[in-house]
Amino acid sequence: MTQPAAVTDLIHERLAPFPRDHFLSAGDLNAATVPPLLDLADAFVDFNRQSSKSLDLMRGRTVMNLFFENSTRTSASFEIAAKRLGADVTALSPRTSSVAKGETLIDTAATLNAMKPDVLVVRHSASGAAALLSQKVGCAVVNAGDGRHEHPTQALLDLLSLRRAFGDVGGLSVAICGDIAHSRVARSNVALLSMMGARVRLIGPPTLVPGDADRWGCEVFHDMREGLRGVDVVMMLRLQLERMEGALVPSTREYFRFWGLDREKLGWARPGAKVMHPGPMNRGVEIDSDVADDLSVSLIQDQVEMGVAARMAVLAALSARREGAGA
Amino acid sequence: MTQPAAVTDLIHERLAPFPRDHFLSAGDLNAATVPPLLDLADAFVDFNRQSSKSLDLMRGRTVMNLFFENSTRTSASFEIAAKRLGADVTALSPRTSSVAKGETLIDTAATLNAMKPDVLVVRHSASGAAALLSQKVGCAVVNAGDGRHEHPTQALLDLLSLRRAFGDVGGLSVAICGDIAHSRVARSNVALLSMMGARVRLIGPPTLVPGDADRWGCEVFHDMREGLRGVDVVMMLRLQLERMEGALVPSTREYFRFWGLDREKLGWARPGAKVMHPGPMNRGVEIDSDVADDLSVSLIQDQVEMGVAARMAVLAALSARREGAGA
Amino acid sequence: MTQPAAVTDLIHERLAPFPRDHFLSAGDLNAATVPPLLDLADAFVDFNRQSSKSLDLMRGRTVMNLFFENSTRTSASFEIAAKRLGADVTALSPRTSSVAKGETLIDTAATLNAMKPDVLVVRHSASGAAALLSQKVGCAVVNAGDGRHEHPTQALLDLLSLRRAFGDVGGLSVAICGDIAHSRVARSNVALLSMMGARVRLIGPPTLVPGDADRWGCEVFHDMREGLRGVDVVMMLRLQLERMEGALVPSTREYFRFWGLDREKLGWARPGAKVMHPGPMNRGVEIDSDVADDLSVSLIQDQVEMGVAARMAVLAALSARREGAGA
Repeated sequence: MTQPAAVTDLIHERLAPFPRDHFLSAGDLNAATVPPLLDLADAFVDFNRQSSKSLDLMRGRTVMNLFFENSTRTSASFEIAAKRLGADVTALSPRTSSVAKGETLIDTAATLNAMKPDVLVVRHSASGAAALLSQKVGCAVVNAGDGRHEHPTQALLDLLSLRRAFGDVGGLSVAICGDIAHSRVARSNVALLSMMGARVRLIGPPTLVPGDADRWGCEVFHDMREGLRGVDVVMMLRLQLERMEGALVPSTREYFRFWGLDREKLGWARPGAKVMHPGPMNRGVEIDSDVADDLSVSLIQDQVEMGVAARMAVLAALSARREGAGA
Repeated sequence: MTQPAAVTDLIHERLAPFPRDHFLSAGDLNAATVPPLLDLADAFVDFNRQSSKSLDLMRGRTVMNLFFENSTRTSASFEIAAKRLGADVTALSPRTSSVAKGETLIDTAATLNAMKPDVLVVRHSASGAAALLSQKVGCAVVNAGDGRHEHPTQALLDLLSLRRAFGDVGGLSVAICGDIAHSRVARSNVALLSMMGARVRLIGPPTLVPGDADRWGCEVFHDMREGLRGVDVVMMLRLQLERMEGALVPSTREYFRFWGLDREKLGWARPGAKVMHPGPMNRGVEIDSDVADDLSVSLIQDQVEMGVAARMAVLAALSARREGAGA
Repeated sequence: MTQPAAVTDLIHERLAPFPRDHFLSAGDLNAATVPPLLDLADAFVDFNRQSSKSLDLMRGRTVMNLFFENSTRTSASFEIAAKRLGADVTALSPRTSSVAKGETLIDTAATLNAMKPDVLVVRHSASGAAALLSQKVGCAVVNAGDGRHEHPTQALLDLLSLRRAFGDVGGLSVAICGDIAHSRVARSNVALLSMMGARVRLIGPPTLVPGDADRWGCEVFHDMREGLRGVDVVMMLRLQLERMEGALVPSTREYFRFWGLDREKLGWARPGAKVMHPGPMNRGVEIDSDVADDLSVSLIQDQVEMGVAARMAVLAALSARREGAGA
């Protein structure tokens, strides 16, 4: 761990403008821009472990958390990340009415824009909502989850966790397991992991793997034993019961039997394989507590810590880009 | 636009104590005290456009947002205004129980008073709630909407928008249209616009114009074509369906046909007339998107920006009065 | 009242590390550690009355308000206390799902821990929740109410109010009245008041006094006239209708007749007796407005003010302990 005084210098040294005006999807990054962003995040991890004081990098700047979907964890993670950088945070949780959501979103964008925030962090149940907002506002937009589409900061923090656990992500074999069809986490992770040279497999029941998954550039398995063979990382997904319609909802007991990660199934992976989950977990549904809580294999707690650091890196880099542009 | 360094000087130069201890209704201002408050707000507009850093005018002061009614937009506008002045903001959204609201309000006042905020921003569904609170607390109270009664900062921001668009409000002809009966925005605007020399007309269906409207000193029309003839400003109101009882709720389709502002109806006003709406809009009910989004006629986005600046002026001036009084 | 400049010196002089890592129950304090904590709180009362600016004692520190149960008042009190000390506050109000609350709580703990707050203020409907959390996190935990178990900062602020009203608490006779069975306030107050040498009586209907109350070291009465005879302090409790099951819910009118404090019943106490209530009051149920609002007998408004000061003392002392430990 870098020494107290040195880490602030390191942060300033590593802080470079974000490559795009917004962070809407994994595709806003590439194999060249990811590593320096993770290096910056690493420095924030050190800083957060050494000090509970906040930095001045975004002092006087305003970050707006606009969560149309409820999410205590992600919202808190962004709020803490922004405050550690010295920013002011205003949280908005609009209750979406049943009428014309598209129009409402555009009016909300115009309203927020007139309030001149520096960064807008947005979560919405509609795919493409963050991208749409980004065209209507003058500030940087971070996609904190849009429908089943993308959740790019989750993929970035997962990558940070993996790089810290394995040193290098290139050549790793990663299995993403479970409810892939309803998961924005899966989409963003496939994109980012593939970009960085990992080989990604998708494992899940046919009803929960999207029809076009073969075009994602991943091998698809419908059997855990077969799919987990030899993988370095088992990334479990939350069963998104809330995004399913009646007929498709599986029995959680049956689901656990076939798709839930327990010791036995983990044994099919490579010895020393690591377990991940974006949270919040349905314990006993997609993952057994025995595996989730074993710190010798589970990176799940690391992921939360890395979430704050990765989001600090994104916010600081977006802010640096705006300052460079004279904003 | 004033230069970056100069605008902070300008703010300090223009900052004068608010004329009253509280801002409860348009009647707390008069023709002499409005212009300097708008001049201060103008300086805040420049400041907000030039810098996203916050000022120190209310550093260490506490603003409490006490919203008994849900309002993402107004609450966020006050929160951002307070934070740009350097204040700490604590947001309270009490769930009003069904019992004895009057008593609850007084207990809440005593509680908040004991916490010694500097400014209390209050929205409540009962007319007179803010005034009642102001008698029970030691801090400055800002009425952010009390029932159908008043919403004075909305009227102030509307005035700021109009002064910036027309240079002078004196002699302007302003039509306030639609659901006047349930609108606190209408009441505050009639008071403030009349005070500053504008001529105000009210246009709406007989069921949505209050019986005593003739005593407001305005001409009343029950026909849009007749009422809009020659006006400089068309201020549309939100149809407050949530404040109506069953029998009175109009069909929104019928409503739009007779009272909704579209291109044709706007054509009845003076050429070059401007359109306003306090938001949030019911698009296709009281206003057509085609008109609302046409920036050559619509001031609606300006109104939001002016909202933050006008509220900064009110909060800073109330705070200056308290500092002068040794608080 | 101490002079403006002197009070900040006084605060620094009196600020000592909290005796434990956490403040989970009244039992974390003893007869030796309570007085210096109240002395510190006294200095904060002076500070709060003199200045609305905030201190720097927790500048850059993060306080998390984790309220699983809704409580506008207590949550606001902690938030204001933390902000007056210069801390950043992040408020989380998780919606507890119907499933496996114990597991959820542990996952929440792990999540929050990874975000590295300095102090976690927690309210939960389950007795022991705060203690459980404290074993899972690296930060200081303050119990802001756990089920029917404890609410130690409420007891501390009550003690502060009493010491300021009576000079010394030793030898005072205090009657705690009403719904004792469902009250965490009663449990914490019995512990702390007894510790400091007060004599505590419990008065309530047999259905609302817990079966083991005789083991609390208090006299138990089932008649107000008998119980109030000669007491110095009448502490009324909120009738916790929301914690009762159907059959046990009393008629509020009957309840008031027998157990509600009015002028007549107060007359049975010692002349000059003081009245307390932790709020929010059910006026006309457990207490009459006539008594509650009479500032010559009621300490109820004082209690709210003392709440901010007592919580500032707890947060500052916990923070000082962590700083001393190199956190």
